[in-house]
Amino acid sequence: MSYSQLVDRFTQLHHFAHLGAICGWDRATMMPDGGNEARAAALAELSRLLHERLTAAEMSEWLAAAEQQELDAQARQSLVEMRRQWQQASVLPADLVQAKSLAGSRCEHAWREQRRNNDWQGFLGNFREVVALSREEARIRGAATGLRPYDSLLDLYEPGMRCQQLDQVFGDLQGWLPALIQAVCERQRDQHIQMPVGPFSIERQAELGRDVMAMLQFDFQRGRQDVSVHPFCGGVPSDVRITTRYDEADFTQSLMGIIHETGHARYEQGLPPSTLALPVGQARSMGIHESQSLFFEMQLARHPAFMQRLLPLIQRAFGAQPAFEAANLARLYTRVEPGFIRVDADEVTYPTHIMLRYEVEQKLIEGSIEAEDIPDLWAERMQQYLGLDTRGNYRDGCLQDIHWTDGSFGYFPSYTLGAMYAAQFAAALQRELGDFNQLLARSDGLEAVFGWLQRNIWQQASRFDTDTLVRQATGEVLNPAHFRAHLTQRYLD
Amino acid sequence: MSYSQLVDRFTQLHHFAHLGAICGWDRATMMPDGGNEARAAALAELSRLLHERLTAAEMSEWLAAAEQQELDAQARQSLVEMRRQWQQASVLPADLVQAKSLAGSRCEHAWREQRRNNDWQGFLGNFREVVALSREEARIRGAATGLRPYDSLLDLYEPGMRCQQLDQVFGDLQGWLPALIQAVCERQRDQHIQMPVGPFSIERQAELGRDVMAMLQFDFQRGRQDVSVHPFCGGVPSDVRITTRYDEADFTQSLMGIIHETGHARYEQGLPPSTLALPVGQARSMGIHESQSLFFEMQLARHPAFMQRLLPLIQRAFGAQPAFEAANLARLYTRVEPGFIRVDADEVTYPTHIMLRYEVEQKLIEGSIEAEDIPDLWAERMQQYLGLDTRGNYRDGCLQDIHWTDGSFGYFPSYTLGAMYAAQFAAALQRELGDFNQLLARSDGLEAVFGWLQRNIWQQASRFDTDTLVRQATGEVLNPAHFRAHLTQRYLD
Repeated sequence: MSYSQLVDRFTQLHHFAHLGAICGWDRATMMPDGGNEARAAALAELSRLLHERLTAAEMSEWLAAAEQQELDAQARQSLVEMRRQWQQASVLPADLVQAKSLAGSRCEHAWREQRRNNDWQGFLGNFREVVALSREEARIRGAATGLRPYDSLLDLYEPGMRCQQLDQVFGDLQGWLPALIQAVCERQRDQHIQMPVGPFSIERQAELGRDVMAMLQFDFQRGRQDVSVHPFCGGVPSDVRITTRYDEADFTQSLMGIIHETGHARYEQGLPPSTLALPVGQARSMGIHESQSLFFEMQLARHPAFMQRLLPLIQRAFGAQPAFEAANLARLYTRVEPGFIRVDADEVTYPTHIMLRYEVEQKLIEGSIEAEDIPDLWAERMQQYLGLDTRGNYRDGCLQDIHWTDGSFGYFPSYTLGAMYAAQFAAALQRELGDFNQLLARSDGLEAVFGWLQRNIWQQASRFDTDTLVRQATGEVLNPAHFRAHLTQRYLD
Repeated sequence: MSYSQLVDRFTQLHHFAHLGAICGWDRATMMPDGGNEARAAALAELSRLLHERLTAAEMSEWLAAAEQQELDAQARQSLVEMRRQWQQASVLPADLVQAKSLAGSRCEHAWREQRRNNDWQGFLGNFREVVALSREEARIRGAATGLRPYDSLLDLYEPGMRCQQLDQVFGDLQGWLPALIQAVCERQRDQHIQMPVGPFSIERQAELGRDVMAMLQFDFQRGRQDVSVHPFCGGVPSDVRITTRYDEADFTQSLMGIIHETGHARYEQGLPPSTLALPVGQARSMGIHESQSLFFEMQLARHPAFMQRLLPLIQRAFGAQPAFEAANLARLYTRVEPGFIRVDADEVTYPTHIMLRYEVEQKLIEGSIEAEDIPDLWAERMQQYLGLDTRGNYRDGCLQDIHWTDGSFGYFPSYTLGAMYAAQFAAALQRELGDFNQLLARSDGLEAVFGWLQRNIWQQASRFDTDTLVRQATGEVLNPAHFRAHLTQRYLD
């Protein structure tokens, strides 16, 4: 009885969240600038509604009563996830939720222009409020859960993950990654790569993107692909919206971006239809989500054996070129080069971008630095990790990401956790089904790969906690050794 | 105190309606088919929420208390419009609202395919429920207001309008329109028109559409234009979304369609910013809305003097052609030809399409015919009014319109009321500012026209009832004689 009341309520919340997801997508892809104030207000009102309904007085009664009911194992796990969502929502006052949504919408919207104009001072004007509200959020969450403020934000994206474990993971990385980057750069220094010659028209790039999405079995009956400043995967599982951005001089960025977002999309499209409205039916965590996009982009699409699949599509889009040769493309797509932009980074240098952001946002939330201190710390670490000078270049520095603009602190670590999970999943899958060289030579090889992900990840949704999900799929919990082995094998063997 | 509570509540409703407007637009323009079930459920949930919040117990208390407050004239009129919306919403049970929204979404979505397939039987399967729920709605509304069931629906779109007045208006039309159609066809029989030679690429038509929207001062910072099966004007005043459909063989349909929707859009974009969230700040009625689109399309854009403005844009889009000559275009755009499709009809035969629909929907709602009787009655009247045989051709007959698919009965008369108001506004404007021949010869002529509409219609929003609005703008209430004079002057003089 109480459990079914909870199911009804979460189904209602799911319907409201649907409207927010589509209007959020619209804001990033379709909406003209003049629409932003009203949109921000509408989305803030929705945030308030969702918060009110999720935290209404009857909810705690229903949860307590349902926990006394006779329920099967699936309903029991469903209830655990319901309580988790309820708990995370109910510690925050509705006013704070709405204020943060409003400040985040404003800051994010203005950032699109400010980033283009390298306008750090303008950005600060909006961003200080986002930081203040996020600190307040972390303080309240931390007090309620007994966690450190930053841990309490981390837990929103990676349930169960703590700074303590992350400090170990990133500490371990710092021990071997700089040396590995150096060794790879050394090794690639004299490598000859034939560069594709542009321009590559946006129309043709879009066609190539659609071809690749079709090959990766994106369901176009339940989703679409558009353009936005910052690529993302949004919408709802029945209608997944992925975006990309195009550069006429370089088709690799949009191609790999689309493959990446298609990984996110297939996870969403592969969730079990019967529980989409419930917390237990949603994706497990941001790290697991990212593991799917990075599985698609890094493990699969940049694997040398995948070039045979990609090549005909690239040639169909752009005609023949000397650069369009499998071994050359494989070298191009595994080229390691320290750079400013996280989303354009290769998989070897990428974790250094995350180490930097993890440090900045942890210090920012816990108050040991202020918003105006970010550029200096950013410049220092970029110099130290990658030997790059970012002073004064905010556009390609601390203004490059969308995450902080709306106060999504605690999210960045998920990217590197995702890379590690992806490597671990790829290792387990290849032990089970044969390595990618064998698999991708088979005509049904992609089906086999997607079948493994469907069985082990997508259709599991949130039926188990992350450790259990990963152990069932791979035989062990998170083990960063697989990521190291992957990089070593691909870049140094 | 109570009045400000009402302002807060209506502002909240406005924010929620924003999300529905954008998601409704998305459904018609962007959404893949597989997304429809979840979207319909989400929009139905939103309908229920809006209904609940609008009709919550405290609302009737606040309304009654506010009506005792000392308020200025503007707040007093605002309160009248609040009560009207509240009254119309509160007579319906929430279950009926949600059931109708759900049945309407399903029927409308399936109709897109069914219309293509001429599938009347398939359509009936969904449509019977829409009719049953609409009759129930009309019965409940009628019982609460003492109006006839159909009048109670009419009043939703045209506050104050009744069948009795419409029967007079349409009775009058029936007296002179058939003879006028005959006389015009007679007169145009030997008229030579040079037809533009296609195909006209969709890209170029879209460019032309954007050029014309810019000339008509559509604010692209607060709106956009896309493609849908059935053209409409949606979105919100800060972000107005108009749509069109393209036919490569004929650019006139999309061109005039865009001009028509731009008229709707400018009304929305011209509403006073300070009261957008309140009933008093919204468009006056569907008939007044349609008067703006028809003012743009019929009074302005098909006026011979407007061709000098349109010609350079058409030539820029499609190059030079013998057909692209002002007098020839003017003849083309005032060509009268009985046809199957309402939205493609000329302004002379158009009212016959409305007379037919008015009769059908009135009888359908009041129960003297059933859904399955529509095709026969349709065929009979099309024969009688326009001499056309529609038997078996549902696609171009009773399946052609979107309105009935989601139960929007009572809306159709607004089109002809709009044509009459448009003629009346055009007559008043020309008395005041000079006739269109003079005005459109002036470089600032369009500004003068839009300024008149802005002052007299757009910025008045719902500050006055329809009769008062029209009397202040034109010196008299609705007077169909202006429409007759317009047709006679344009087509027979």
